[in-house]
Order: sequence, then C-alpha cells, then structure tokens
Amino acid sequence: MRPSNRELNQMRDIVIETDVTRHAEGSCLIKIGDTHVLCTASLEERVPPFLRNSGLGWVTAEYGMLPRATHTRMRREAKNGQSGRTQEIQRLIGRSLRAGVDRVALGERQISIDCDVIQADGGTRCAAITGGWVALKLAVQKLMKAGDIISDPLVDPVAAVSCGIYAGQAVLDLDYPEDSEAGVDGNFVMLGSGKLVEVQMSAEGSTFSRDQMGQLIDLAEAGVSQLVAAQLAAVG
Amino acid sequence: MRPSNRELNQMRDIVIETDVTRHAEGSCLIKIGDTHVLCTASLEERVPPFLRNSGLGWVTAEYGMLPRATHTRMRREAKNGQSGRTQEIQRLIGRSLRAGVDRVALGERQISIDCDVIQADGGTRCAAITGGWVALKLAVQKLMKAGDIISDPLVDPVAAVSCGIYAGQAVLDLDYPEDSEAGVDGNFVMLGSGKLVEVQMSAEGSTFSRDQMGQLIDLAEAGVSQLVAAQLAAVG
Amino acid sequence: MRPSNRELNQMRDIVIETDVTRHAEGSCLIKIGDTHVLCTASLEERVPPFLRNSGLGWVTAEYGMLPRATHTRMRREAKNGQSGRTQEIQRLIGRSLRAGVDRVALGERQISIDCDVIQADGGTRCAAITGGWVALKLAVQKLMKAGDIISDPLVDPVAAVSCGIYAGQAVLDLDYPEDSEAGVDGNFVMLGSGKLVEVQMSAEGSTFSRDQMGQLIDLAEAGVSQLVAAQLAAVG
Amino acid sequence: MRPSNRELNQMRDIVIETDVTRHAEGSCLIKIGDTHVLCTASLEERVPPFLRNSGLGWVTAEYGMLPRATHTRMRREAKNGQSGRTQEIQRLIGRSLRAGVDRVALGERQISIDCDVIQADGGTRCAAITGGWVALKLAVQKLMKAGDIISDPLVDPVAAVSCGIYAGQAVLDLDYPEDSEAGVDGNFVMLGSGKLVEVQMSAEGSTFSRDQMGQLIDLAEAGVSQLVAAQLAAVG
Amino acid sequence: MRPSNRELNQMRDIVIETDVTRHAEGSCLIKIGDTHVLCTASLEERVPPFLRNSGLGWVTAEYGMLPRATHTRMRREAKNGQSGRTQEIQRLIGRSLRAGVDRVALGERQISIDCDVIQADGGTRCAAITGGWVALKLAVQKLMKAGDIISDPLVDPVAAVSCGIYAGQAVLDLDYPEDSEAGVDGNFVMLGSGKLVEVQMSAEGSTFSRDQMGQLIDLAEAGVSQLVAAQLAAVG
Amino acid sequence: MRPSNRELNQMRDIVIETDVTRHAEGSCLIKIGDTHVLCTASLEERVPPFLRNSGLGWVTAEYGMLPRATHTRMRREAKNGQSGRTQEIQRLIGRSLRAGVDRVALGERQISIDCDVIQADGGTRCAAITGGWVALKLAVQKLMKAGDIISDPLVDPVAAVSCGIYAGQAVLDLDYPEDSEAGVDGNFVMLGSGKLVEVQMSAEGSTFSRDQMGQLIDLAEAGVSQLVAAQLAAVG
Repeated sequence: MRPSNRELNQMRDIVIETDVTRHAEGSCLIKIGDTHVLCTASLEERVPPFLRNSGLGWVTAEYGMLPRATHTRMRREAKNGQSGRTQEIQRLIGRSLRAGVDRVALGERQISIDCDVIQADGGTRCAAITGGWVALKLAVQKLMKAGDIISDPLVDPVAAVSCGIYAGQAVLDLDYPEDSEAGVDGNFVMLGSGKLVEVQMSAEGSTFSRDQMGQLIDLAEAGVSQLVAAQLAAVG
Repeated sequence: MRPSNRELNQMRDIVIETDVTRHAEGSCLIKIGDTHVLCTASLEERVPPFLRNSGLGWVTAEYGMLPRATHTRMRREAKNGQSGRTQEIQRLIGRSLRAGVDRVALGERQISIDCDVIQADGGTRCAAITGGWVALKLAVQKLMKAGDIISDPLVDPVAAVSCGIYAGQAVLDLDYPEDSEAGVDGNFVMLGSGKLVEVQMSAEGSTFSRDQMGQLIDLAEAGVSQLVAAQLAAVG
Repeated sequence: MRPSNRELNQMRDIVIETDVTRHAEGSCLIKIGDTHVLCTASLEERVPPFLRNSGLGWVTAEYGMLPRATHTRMRREAKNGQSGRTQEIQRLIGRSLRAGVDRVALGERQISIDCDVIQADGGTRCAAITGGWVALKLAVQKLMKAGDIISDPLVDPVAAVSCGIYAGQAVLDLDYPEDSEAGVDGNFVMLGSGKLVEVQMSAEGSTFSRDQMGQLIDLAEAGVSQLVAAQLAAVG
Repeated sequence: MRPSNRELNQMRDIVIETDVTRHAEGSCLIKIGDTHVLCTASLEERVPPFLRNSGLGWVTAEYGMLPRATHTRMRREAKNGQSGRTQEIQRLIGRSLRAGVDRVALGERQISIDCDVIQADGGTRCAAITGGWVALKLAVQKLMKAGDIISDPLVDPVAAVSCGIYAGQAVLDLDYPEDSEAGVDGNFVMLGSGKLVEVQMSAEGSTFSRDQMGQLIDLAEAGVSQLVAAQLAAVG
Repeated sequence: MRPSNRELNQMRDIVIETDVTRHAEGSCLIKIGDTHVLCTASLEERVPPFLRNSGLGWVTAEYGMLPRATHTRMRREAKNGQSGRTQEIQRLIGRSLRAGVDRVALGERQISIDCDVIQADGGTRCAAITGGWVALKLAVQKLMKAGDIISDPLVDPVAAVSCGIYAGQAVLDLDYPEDSEAGVDGNFVMLGSGKLVEVQMSAEGSTFSRDQMGQLIDLAEAGVSQLVAAQLAAVG
Repeated sequence: MRPSNRELNQMRDIVIETDVTRHAEGSCLIKIGDTHVLCTASLEERVPPFLRNSGLGWVTAEYGMLPRATHTRMRREAKNGQSGRTQEIQRLIGRSLRAGVDRVALGERQISIDCDVIQADGGTRCAAITGGWVALKLAVQKLMKAGDIISDPLVDPVAAVSCGIYAGQAVLDLDYPEDSEAGVDGNFVMLGSGKLVEVQMSAEGSTFSRDQMGQLIDLAEAGVSQLVAAQLAAVG
C-alpha cells in the first residue's frame, strides 16, 4: 500500500490556477497534491547571441525552491549559488519545453519560464514542466491575440510525470515519502500526442530490468494524458 | 490626486492569510494591495556561535524576490548573488523583528524568517516586516502550546509602513507608481504600543524639512495601527 | 558622563587635511577624533549606461576598511567579498552626496568617491560622507578652473553626524565605546542650509519615542553646522 | 552511412591502458576511438559527514575537460567555475558507479574517481563511467591484496554507452559528428549482468517513440557487453 | 647523495612526444623524469582588447594540475578557483614564452598555451615552459607552412630548469623529494642562446650567498642546453 | 638621465613614520619617494592548523592597493577579488619576512602584516617588505617588553629594493616612469647582513646577461644597506 493510500496507477489531484500574478505575460500555480509550483512566462525582446538574425525564437527556464518549501529549511541559493541539482533541473525544463515549440513560428523572441517551488512533496521538476507549458501557452496566446504571432508555435502540449518502483511495485506520480524510499525512479516527459521527449531513469543503490522500464512508461503515459487534459482545460 | 485614487492618509487593502504552507512552523501570505509577500518561520535548533550557552534566542531574516515579481523580469539572485539592496533589506527585517522579541523568554533557539516577494507593487520591505511578525508569532504559539516556551516572548507586535512626499504632499503607504516618483520616502517600523524601532528617511535628488518629517510620522502611526489590528486578527 | 569626558552636545575634534594624495583629482584625510578616513575623488570619462547621452552627471561612492583599522583585525574584504554592512554604507554615501549635486551643471561625467577607513573609532560612515564631499568639491573646483564646468554643481555642502541615546541621555557624535553600548543610534545627513537628506535611526533591542527623536535631530543640527564650517574652511 | 563508415551497430575501437599514473591507487586511460579519458581512483580516509560511524563506504566522482580537448578551445573551468553540464555529468558518474558497489563490503572509506577528458570526440561521460569503474576496481584490488577488504565490493562491472537516432536510423556509440546532428540521443548505464542502472534519453527539437527506445536499448546492450569484456581484460 | 642517485649536475631523462592530441594546432607531452605535462597550443583569432589594430600578436598561458597528479589528491580547482600559486605559475609561463616571440612577425593573432600536469614530481613550471615552447613552435610551423606567417617569430627556444641547494650542495633539476627539503631553490628561464629571461630564487627559512647563486646559474645553463637540444629534436 | 634626475645608484628619499595607527600592535607608514605604504602588524592568538602544538610561530602578510593609489583609478579588489598580481606579491612578502624570523623564539603565535598602498609610484612590493619588517619588529618589541618573548626572534632586518635596466643602464630603485619602460627589472630581498633571501628578475620582451645581473645585485646591496639603516633608526 502507498503511504497516501492511492492506487498504484493513481495520480494525485491536479489543480492549475492561471493568471496568478499580474506582471508576467503568462502565469499559473500548479498543484500536484502538496507540490505547488509557481510558473511565470516572461517575454523578452532579445534572443541569445547565437540566435541573432536567425529568425528563430528561444524558450529557456530557471528553477528555484523557496528555502522553506521543504520539510526542513534549506540554505537560500541566492546566498550560496545554484546547486548542481538545481542547474540540472532547469536545463531539463528548458530542453523539454523547447521540444514542443515551433521556433520558426515563434519568431525571433525569447520567453523565459521561471518555476519556483512554493511547497515541495516530490515531483517538483515534473510539475514545473507541466505548469511551465501552461504559462508559456498563455504568453503565446497574448502574442497571437495581438497579432504578433500568426501561426501557433505550441500545437502539442508538453507534460511530465515521475514513476518508480516503490516497495517492489511500479507506481505512478511519486510523492516525497515514496520518492525518498524508491530504489528506482524515472521522469518521463511527453507530448500530448504521446511522443516521448525525455526519459530519465535512475537507480540509486539498485538496478532495473527492461520489463520494469516498460511498466513505468505505461504508467507515465496514463499520467501524462491526465495532465494534458488539465493543461488544455486551464488554457481554455 | 494619487494614481490609485486613495486619500492621502489611506492604506491599501490589508489581507493576511495564515498557515499557507504545510512545512513551516509558522507562515502567512501578506497582501498590501498588489504587493504579496510569502513569509515563513523556521524553527532551527542551533543558535549562531556567538550565542551558544548564553540562554538567549535569535531571530534572523532573509529576503528575496521572485524574478518576475516585478514589471520587467529581474535576474535571478541565485545565479548572480544577492544585491546590496537585498542584503540591506534583510538586515533591516531581522533587526526590526528582534526589537519585539524577549530573547530570554524565547530561550536558546533560532527562528529564521524567510520573506519572498511573489508580486511587487512598492513597500515590499514593510510588508515583509509586518508579515514576518505574523509568521514568527504563529511559530512561537506552537512552541507555547507544546510547553517549550512558558512566557510569551512576543508581547508587542512589530509592523512597518512607508510614507513619502508625492507630488508635494505627504502620503501614506506608497505604491510602486508613487514610490518611483517620490522625492522623499521613508520606512517606519513601530511596535503596536507606538514606540519607534527604526526610521529610514531618504531623499533621492531632493531634501526634506523637520515639519515634513513630522507629517510622515503622523501618517505612519495611523498606518501602523491598522496593520497591527490586522496582525492581531490574523494570529487569533 | 561620557567615556571621553565630552559634554553631551560636544563634537570630537574635526581635522580635514586636503590634497593628501597626488594622483586623485580631489582628496582629503578627515579625522573626527580617532576616526580617520581617506577620501579621494576620481574623475572618470564614462557615465553608467543608463545615463548615456542624457547630459546628466553621476556621483558614486565606494567604502572600505583597512583590516587593522579596528580594535581586532578584521578579514580583508578583497579576499572575502564586501559584507552587507559595507555595501549598505557605500550606497548611503553615494545617495547622500548626490543629494547635494546639480547633475545638469556637472555635465555628463562621473566622479567616484573612495572612502577608506585608516583608523576606526565610531562614526566612519558619517566621516566618509563629510570628507567625501570635500574630495568631491576639490575635484569640481579643478574642473571649473579648467573651464570644463561653468556653473558650480555643488552649492550646498553635504555633511553627516551620528547621535544616540547613551546611558539614557541623548549625545552627539558617538565614538566606538558609546556606539557599542547605545540602545538607539542614528545617522543624520544634512545640507549646509539645514535641510535633511537622510535620517537613519535604529534601535537594537530597544525602542525610542518621538521626543527622543527630536532631541537627536537637535544635536545633529548643531554638529552638522560645525562640520560644514570645517568643510568650507578646507575647500577654501 | 555513418561519417566514420562504421556499421550501425559497430562500436569504435576500445583501448584501456591501466596504471598510467604512479600516485593514484588505481588508474587507466580509456580510449573509445578518439575520445580519451584519464581516470584515477584516490583512496581517502574520511567519508562524508552523513556516513560517519555508519560502517558504509562511499564512491564519488569528479569530471573535467582540458581546455583544448575539443575542436575549439573552451574556457578553463578553474577560472570560471564548473558549468551546469559538468556538474550534471559528474553526478551521473558517481551515481552510476555506486550502483555497482557493495558499500558494506567496501567499509567506511571513500574512493574518489577523477575523470579528465584529454581528447573529446563524443561520448565522454560514457567513457568516464566505463574507465572510472576500471580505476575503482584496481584500487579495490590493492585494498584486497593488503587484506584491508575481505569480500569484493565490486562483483559486477558498470559500463555505459551512448546510442541515438542519426539520419533516421538507430546507431551505436555516437561520435562527435553524429552526436551534434542526432535528433535523439541516449546514455545507457548497465551492469555486466545486463541490468539497467541509468537511462537518459533526450530529444533536442524532436521526439521519439517507444519502438525507437527499444531499438536503442538493444544496441546499448550489445555495446556494453563489449565494453565489459574490455574492462575485465584490463583488470585481469 | 641525491635520493634518485643522480649526479649533482645530472638532469632527469627528458622525453618530448609531439602531436599527442588531434584538435590542438600544436601539442606535446613533456616528461622530465616522473613529471609529465601535457602542453597544447590553441590559435585564436582575436587578440586581447589592448592589442586590437596594433599589428602585434600575443602569447598567453594557463596552467593546471589534475587532482591526482600529486602524492595525495588535491582539491579540484574548477570547484574552488585557481590558487595564488597556480596564478603565479601561469603568469610566469606566459611572460617567459613571450620573451622568445617576435610579436611583429607573429602578426595580430593570439596563441594560448595550456599546460596541464598529468603527473607531478617537482619542476612542473619548468617543464611547462619547456614543453609549452614546443607546442607553440609546432603551431607556428603550421601557420608558416600555410603561408599565414612569413618570417619565423620563434628563432630562439625558451626553456627552464630548477636548481637548488640540497643537503648543502648545489644540484640540478630538483625532483619532489629534493624540492620539499631544499632550503634554497630557483627557477631559471633562458633562451637557447644562453640569455637569461627570468630568474626566481627563493629561500624558505634560509638564505643564500652570491657564490651559491653563481653555482646554481652554472648548473642551470648546463641543464637548459640539454633541454634546448631536446626541444629542437622534437620540432624537427 | 633618469626622469627624476637621480644618479644611477641613487635611492629615493626614505621616510619611515612609526606608530601611525592606534590599534595595531606595530605600525609604520613607509615612504620611498612618492610610494607610500601603510604597514600594520596584528598579533593573533591562533596559528594555522598545520602548526598547532608545534611550538613554532608564523608570520603572514596581505597586500592591497587603495583604488586611487595609482594614476588612474583601479577597480576595488573587495568587489572583484584579489588579482593574480596581488596574490603573488603577498606571498612574496610573507615568505621574505619569515626568512628573518626565528620561529622557535617567536613561540606559537601568529603575526599578520597588512601592507596597504596609499600612493603608488613603483616599487610598492619592496616598500611593503621593508616597512612590513618595521611593523613586525615593533610588535615583537612589545611582546618582549611584556615578557611574553624572551629571546629576540628578529635579529637581522629584512629589506628589499628593485633595480632594473633602464635606457640601457643599470639603475637603483625604479620609480613608476622607469618601471613602465624598463626591459629588465628585478626585486631583491636581503637581510641586513647582506645574505640573499629572494631574487626575482624578469625581462618583459627582452633578455639579460649574467654581467647585467651582477650589476643589478651590486646596486641592490647598496640600496638595501640604506634601507636597513632607516629601519634600525625607526625601531630605535
């Protein structure tokens, strides 16, 4: 049995509140159970130097955790610099979101996605990708409404979920108590159409078989389809 | 006339939501108009080295802004280090809160207040002090309920408000459009009993008289009394 | 009684030696009792990016302490980075000096004021502001003599003094033994004409009343008028 | 056709030279085609604080590239700090090697694996894991010969290989020209027994299907078995 | 007697392997006994800002040690920043190599020499200078073969050796056991023609006489002539 | 002819003012012509970890330049970190001073010498060594007067001077105009008894012969004897 009494293939409750901050071009607060991430999309006029005059747009992401998002207080990264874990996560978010962007259609502009974890209970990077896509979509909708973009660069949503082997069984959407005990866990980024974008499976002090890998992807596909439904509902 | 159509001596709406995050020993989201600050209190077992075996407690604070709390996106401090402005503000918050703490009654423990600005519209440091006291009080209430503290170390609330000379007139509780135009502005930290804790008045490209200073303090006293009422209501 | 046997309203001896270093466009060594600060003004051709082609000049300041300016040796900031306290002080110095500058008359050039504490005995930031204005004025006099500036951008001196409540009484110009004991202390920056530029009053583990605030400003006005007289004598 | 004229399922030449540096407890120079990585194992007496008195050992890894290991010179990380990519890679190497260690049998000691890329042509992180295991094994063999370890903590080798979709086809062991063009690439860490330790598949500006994922793992299994044979030959 | 049983005036074996890495414009692995340094020359199109449009070229150098090049593992400088010792050495290497370069003949281009110590046994900075010149020469030969440089900017080799007073006697080419015991040691950089470029003699907890200084230079001249012969053989 | 009209073997005026700061255990302001360096000696109770319980003392040094000690303002190192040049100089000062210390006689205590350049005109590191010894001696005299040290650990002064080849001739005590033009320059650290402690000769874009080296040392010996006379007069 799972600590939360969920079924093996049961997601936590998914809530996506949009337009939660007045300055950002797009924003949402995504809640996957007790994991809460504030995602904002900021339109910036300049692209990185390697894209100047290329006609191509860029999407990038940054990730952070408030010091007391966690069970015990963590040191503030503004005082100590970003950890390796933080950098790894924000690189993943940016890469994942770009997989769902038609950068020609976006045009030569940059959208920066900030994902800040207000409260953590496992799966923050997956929530950040899922909510980050919503913020991104809302910002793009504004650009389309204003006529700055003609063809929608975001036709297929990007969403992510974690799965793992907990107490010997494949389970969907690990929360923190599960995540800290799971011998194997994976993060799966997919498009709404089911195509895979990124798979990261890792065994800390353990290993896994191809069969187990298949079970986890089955679960992930089911989870992502629920997340995508919530995304589409949120962006109207 | 003020951009917000407020009276010269009118505060913005004050909303304090408590227990907004499940891990912190105390927390609130304080909204002073469109300025929203999430404040958490974290109980930590150790005190700084200079207080070991002194029997005295410590209260400290850290401050941050999410990158898109502002009109245009700011660089993330986790990537660039804390600015001088940030350090100055968090030193002020810690000093102000300690003015209202009986450190003997608190006992040899540390409470860290994290103030993170979710949305900024002027007066973030004052909102952080006011909300920080609420988070601190809630954490202390838990310690008292558990019998870890006998005598209440927080008898008199600490609150803060900004005032300034805008368009030639003394006004209470500057919002961002006022703050960016005001020739003179001040931050006033007071106890619920009306005693002054900290006064910071500053003229950028301007000066002020003692009369004007008196007018601003009059306004501040009126504002702080409303803030204190909201604090007391919030902590029950 | 004060540790130095001074009257409550008595300044320490004020000595300002000018032109103490041969390379700087303006310089002085200011001695307020045993607090000695070397101030230099460096003319630089470029203004910060936000002022380019604005026609406006800029004055900025940096502050430092030699490691053994203090009773016990401090760590060298070149090895450890500037502390929050240092950054807060140098922001105050720059802001204060700019309050006395007509930036149109200065023209599009920058003058950097370096304030380095050779020996510390309390009140270093106030001595830095007072001496910094002298260095600035000397540099501007050279520019006027050379015909590079026509109209004097520095018509009213800027000076600063600290006051505080020591042993229950309001005293002028705190030295280190007083400063480390005072429950309330304030820094007051004023123009020669008596206008206020910046007021910073702070109570560490204490509070103060509006009456006490008034007494401290009375003392500060008396102190600043003596400092301004010394400034004017120094710059001829 | 592949740029190197290799078959789709053909590894580059694998060369592992052992004991290439005299100070390290274990060392090898691994060459996977033109990718050359120097791996050293350093026995250190202390374990990280969280393992003190636990009886458990620790294996950690650091990764670097010489500035001119690449086609054009990169900035030296000693001058600029480790990049996010570098930190991500060294976290992967450490995690992967630990998956093959019996930390009880190792005993309370730490072995640090340094992987420095002398020449890069794609697949440096996989070469580092494969060569790192050889250095680790050689160090452990010394400890066993000296009687400091009784039961072998390294029974199953750890090796890694990259595969990807290049020009529409699944290929084994990407070199740099392939890696920089591949829409999908993955890194696969496995034990000699075939169990999976870590899978990282990523699509930059593309996606992949579960079928393609299966093809890549098939290739990886074939590649790893050749790498493991070379490892076992190298460690005698 | 010397720990290595060498004669007082005997160099260690000198081996210079060229073209050891495929990307660099010039490269060698220099072995002075058990001290092994990999030297690469990277041609870069831009010169430092102070040389733009001057027609003059530039040669610069960077130095590093792999963490386990030494008896016990050192902390990786990429994690901790370059030490004062490292910076001092790389400044010496750059200055020394520039002494042998006709910067007009080189033309407005920069060549960066990277010297990375693979294995250390004393004398790493001298080996780096000697091997660095070989890498530099090989890169320049390519430029000359391509017709990009007409007149050879490197007519006289630059080489370096250390000497010291060990157990009361002047000895040539200190290895690590000697270097860590020697009361006086010196580094001597010379041209092939015998002219001196740099002399650094240092006594840690000791002193030396002019006579001793003369003896060390005699030894250094003999050592450098052997190093220059090896350099010339290496570059053909 | 020299820019200053000095004879080839003529030192600049040497002035050493002692006890110039009230907190340091020893201090002096040394003026070598227009080069002015403030040197303080700080007695510290602890020795570095590698000397604990060894019975041996330690002397260390730090060096800095005020931003406007030079012709044009330099960036403040507290904001940017110590440059390689600064670190190299402070390592030299510490090593040089230790050569004149009997560390057994000093006992297990540390004296830190801070050398801060108030005004620079060439030769700042030599002035720092010469003045640093005076500050050190004054601090030791206090310890001896107090009976904390019985046997004088500083029997032979340490002093330093620079010499160079300027306009083809060997000259003593380079000032800035000479230093910036000299093809060859050297720093010579000696004891009062004439023994050599450190020799650093360097040719930037030039070379030198052993004859020239001898001439420079002859000049240095003459210069150091004058510096030592000034040191002995200063410390009484």
